[in-house]
Amino acid sequence: MEIEVKFRLDRDIKHIIQQFATFEIEKVEEDIYFNSPSRDFRETDEALRVRKDVEGFSITYKGPKVDSETKSREEIKLRVNDFNAAVELFKKLGFREAGRVVKKRTIYRVGNAIICLDDVEGLGKFVEIEVECDDLEKGKQEIFEIAEKLGFDKGESIRRSYLEMVLERKG
Amino acid sequence: MEIEVKFRLDRDIKHIIQQFATFEIEKVEEDIYFNSPSRDFRETDEALRVRKDVEGFSITYKGPKVDSETKSREEIKLRVNDFNAAVELFKKLGFREAGRVVKKRTIYRVGNAIICLDDVEGLGKFVEIEVECDDLEKGKQEIFEIAEKLGFDKGESIRRSYLEMVLERKG
Repeated sequence: MEIEVKFRLDRDIKHIIQQFATFEIEKVEEDIYFNSPSRDFRETDEALRVRKDVEGFSITYKGPKVDSETKSREEIKLRVNDFNAAVELFKKLGFREAGRVVKKRTIYRVGNAIICLDDVEGLGKFVEIEVECDDLEKGKQEIFEIAEKLGFDKGESIRRSYLEMVLERKG
Repeated sequence: MEIEVKFRLDRDIKHIIQQFATFEIEKVEEDIYFNSPSRDFRETDEALRVRKDVEGFSITYKGPKVDSETKSREEIKLRVNDFNAAVELFKKLGFREAGRVVKKRTIYRVGNAIICLDDVEGLGKFVEIEVECDDLEKGKQEIFEIAEKLGFDKGESIRRSYLEMVLERKG
């Protein structure tokens, strides 16, 4: 289970993060999302993504969100050796490209959690706080404590995905 | 494009193969095949497979056969880092397990082609001759020349997949 919150960034919080978290990597992530031929992922709240970044290529499936305050959900991630073959595979299986998200992501680590400073093409800046944990309540407590340190309140949490925001923006 | 023929083996041909081909590897391949939620792969003549062997894990999509004498077809192959996650991914996407094929495969190489001596659980022994090539006629000539050296005739070629044979056997 991936337990995750997202907030819009309207101020610089890097200096606060650096007080308690460790810089891990800065990278560009290029994501292609797919929709299924057998059900509409916008309605089932699922996602299928093929990602390219400096660390390699991956396929990720995300199940429906399981919590009203966060964007926590089941996640299956697979590293693969070939980005174009992964895209081609899903197209052959009848999946259609739903949209693309490109962002510069700076990752900091604190305990089991990561803090991602994201600059998303066309959308602007956000912070995501994530922990992989099978205990939803425990994980939520952990990420909301970090959110509070950064000056964010539960009520400001954005549950929409970058893909949804990119598609809304395109109208 | 994967250009391929298969013959049933009722005699030992290892000594003939060793005269002109080089031993590459002997391994056990464990394959799980999936059927799609959006179309019946038995009717569309497609295949989706997750494989585990000593070299690692892979996902393979095979398109419909494009030739009446061989089992040649488009193939997209992806190496992945996690067998169980790959199986789980397709299940989450609505694919259903169609069957399993387990075989001991001994691979020999000659030029661009490979010769596979297969001992398939529940089915017996076969030889497959394969070449990856975008020129179907050139590839067919290459594999039928090898087949002839091994004493097989075009007319004996089996176009059914191991999965189809396993499922037929189960009735």
